[in-house]
Amino acid sequence: MTEPGTVRPGGRTARVRAAVLRAAEDALVEKGFDGLDLADVARRAEVGKTTVYRRWGTVAALLADLLTDMAEQSSPRAETGSLLGDLRANAGLVRRTLADPRQGALFKAVIIAAACDERAAAALRRFYRTRIAEWAPCVERAVAQGELPAGTDPHEVIKAVSAPLYYRFLASGDPLDEAAADLAARAAVAAARAGAYVRP
Amino acid sequence: MTEPGTVRPGGRTARVRAAVLRAAEDALVEKGFDGLDLADVARRAEVGKTTVYRRWGTVAALLADLLTDMAEQSSPRAETGSLLGDLRANAGLVRRTLADPRQGALFKAVIIAAACDERAAAALRRFYRTRIAEWAPCVERAVAQGELPAGTDPHEVIKAVSAPLYYRFLASGDPLDEAAADLAARAAVAAARAGAYVRP
Repeated sequence: MTEPGTVRPGGRTARVRAAVLRAAEDALVEKGFDGLDLADVARRAEVGKTTVYRRWGTVAALLADLLTDMAEQSSPRAETGSLLGDLRANAGLVRRTLADPRQGALFKAVIIAAACDERAAAALRRFYRTRIAEWAPCVERAVAQGELPAGTDPHEVIKAVSAPLYYRFLASGDPLDEAAADLAARAAVAAARAGAYVRP
Repeated sequence: MTEPGTVRPGGRTARVRAAVLRAAEDALVEKGFDGLDLADVARRAEVGKTTVYRRWGTVAALLADLLTDMAEQSSPRAETGSLLGDLRANAGLVRRTLADPRQGALFKAVIIAAACDERAAAALRRFYRTRIAEWAPCVERAVAQGELPAGTDPHEVIKAVSAPLYYRFLASGDPLDEAAADLAARAAVAAARAGAYVRP
């Protein structure tokens, strides 16, 4: 598999990877993880089957590369100037992603894959670690400025913003509307201010 | 399908239902929703195929009945005398269920079914509504006693306890340990005290 940084942006290798990853997304959205097949992905991407087999080798490796790409392509952290503003922006991003028909179907397929396949689960955990690390600095700044108690775990605060949105998406079926995103951000800030996320 | 209350407890009809639902659980844990098949469930339950087809008819109806049974069989609400104690008990129950190998596999299968099948999703939403309504009174009492702000939505508080545990279970892969359950309960209480769950 190609390591990040070893491919000239816009080169043929990068174009092949982009086409294959988009084809893998299409296949996941249409048929789910069980329907993901390297030969089918090669056909959809109009790329030689041998190229796909040589470069990714297995469906799990292809999914792992797709999740790496999704983490890299995701929107960068917002800088609104306030903790609540930043966490609202984060909640809004998570909400829009899960509520979007294509992105939502893609996340469902990836989460189902992770429930059934340990390599897919490891790739999904890396995806969340990357995204959480991207947003953690807004909490770190609030701790440094005394807005949150010393010792607050920034990663736990970011996860607390996502959790109620994923719970609606996967379990309760409650609507993923803007009010839900706003509530997720406000509840995380309130709990963090009260010291709930101070490391024990 | 048999309505609750129309079957004598311990009668033959109830025994058949219990055997079929346990067999459906076994099949879901072993093979997932895609592997659920009425003829296979009848064989596992040692019940006539015709009985299973006549009484449940479809895999989705069988899953809906299983979720009704799971909601009815779940542990009743604890009465610890304090809001934090009650929500800790609730978080502990959710955590033990998801961390248990058999129950966890069953919930993954049911959640995957709900992601793929609208009737399964409706049955899962009913399951969560029942469980949340069972635990809501401990929040209602805290509101009545002035421990939480007037207008706090009890259902949102109960969901806030579950959400971080489901997020670990399905998305981040972080451990479902007792510290996670304790954090879920403390964060929900802190956010509720700060007024985050007051209905707008």
